Amino acid sequence: MQADVNARIDVYFDFSSPYSYLSVARIQQITKPLNITVRLMPIALGAIFQKLGWQSSPFLEQPRKLDYMWIDVARQARKHGLEFEKPAQFPIGSIVAARVATAYKEAQWHDAFCLRVLKAYFVDNKDISQPAVIEKILRELNLDAEEIITHSTSESVKGLLRVRTEQADQLGVFGAPTMVVGGAIFWGDDRLEDAVAHCLSI
Amino acid sequence: MQADVNARIDVYFDFSSPYSYLSVARIQQITKPLNITVRLMPIALGAIFQKLGWQSSPFLEQPRKLDYMWIDVARQARKHGLEFEKPAQFPIGSIVAARVATAYKEAQWHDAFCLRVLKAYFVDNKDISQPAVIEKILRELNLDAEEIITHSTSESVKGLLRVRTEQADQLGVFGAPTMVVGGAIFWGDDRLEDAVAHCLSI
Repeated sequence: MQADVNARIDVYFDFSSPYSYLSVARIQQITKPLNITVRLMPIALGAIFQKLGWQSSPFLEQPRKLDYMWIDVARQARKHGLEFEKPAQFPIGSIVAARVATAYKEAQWHDAFCLRVLKAYFVDNKDISQPAVIEKILRELNLDAEEIITHSTSESVKGLLRVRTEQADQLGVFGAPTMVVGGAIFWGDDRLEDAVAHCLSI
Repeated sequence: MQADVNARIDVYFDFSSPYSYLSVARIQQITKPLNITVRLMPIALGAIFQKLGWQSSPFLEQPRKLDYMWIDVARQARKHGLEFEKPAQFPIGSIVAARVATAYKEAQWHDAFCLRVLKAYFVDNKDISQPAVIEKILRELNLDAEEIITHSTSESVKGLLRVRTEQADQLGVFGAPTMVVGGAIFWGDDRLEDAVAHCLSI
């Protein structure tokens, strides 16, 4: 089965979200054979949490739920054949990476960058809040890391990320990942397959 | 593939939980061919929520999340070929039904009763907090409804439900449904298949 030529899934996610790692790591393999276009759209989810009156991720408010989350993420990663190590620090600042991705959303290396950042955090326990860590990832992609980081911290790029996060908020996003397909939202890595099925049905 | 002769999944759930409806409606069809024993174990989840410092279901704290939940439950029901209508009142008192199920956990009609109560609420919009509604379900099962309700409100049965709910709490339950397989917990209808796979692997 092939999708309509305009079929597209927008994935709103945060680089500090473990279930976002699972979805970003899985989505290309699922959507490519179906001819579905994917737009990876990192946002500053914390800003939405704050607006909704949450201090942080709802998982953090409850130790019991958080403990379970890590067990579950490890199980899901194993099930999907993905590497995973629980990071030492959670959550983590994701704004540096989110700004780079927003500034260079059209770049050919954009999707590879997103996945590498998620893996740096959820597999290699790197502190992705540090510009130096993001720079290293950019250099590994043979890019001018310094120039990219400098541009990404410009006021215009900060504004772009704010606009994208507000867009997610308008769409009704309250967690990550959220897949948006023609206005319909699908929350959580568990719903990735449902989002794909919906994309094929419209 | 067949499970070990002792393979068992305990499903802790609450009659007012929509995802519990999905799991209870689905589980027999999945587990029967695999020779897995299922124990349906309704609890008073509200007591655990209170202990964890939540006023009620975490879904209720956030209108945006709650709105999404109903869309999602309807989608999942459709996907699995189950009837579903959003009930007028949510959540709802589930203690009458939970006490009946606890008191008669060994009865042949126990599982059918559980599913009928969930359907009464999530398909037929019945107020299952009312003893009269539960009595009607019991009569439809050709049972002595009055005797059952009377026995179910005895102090000893109230105590049994408290013990079962405490047991769930000890196991780390924080939401419903929670499937328990050999000490491992799997939370949410999304994890039913994982619980079954785990049951086959141990």
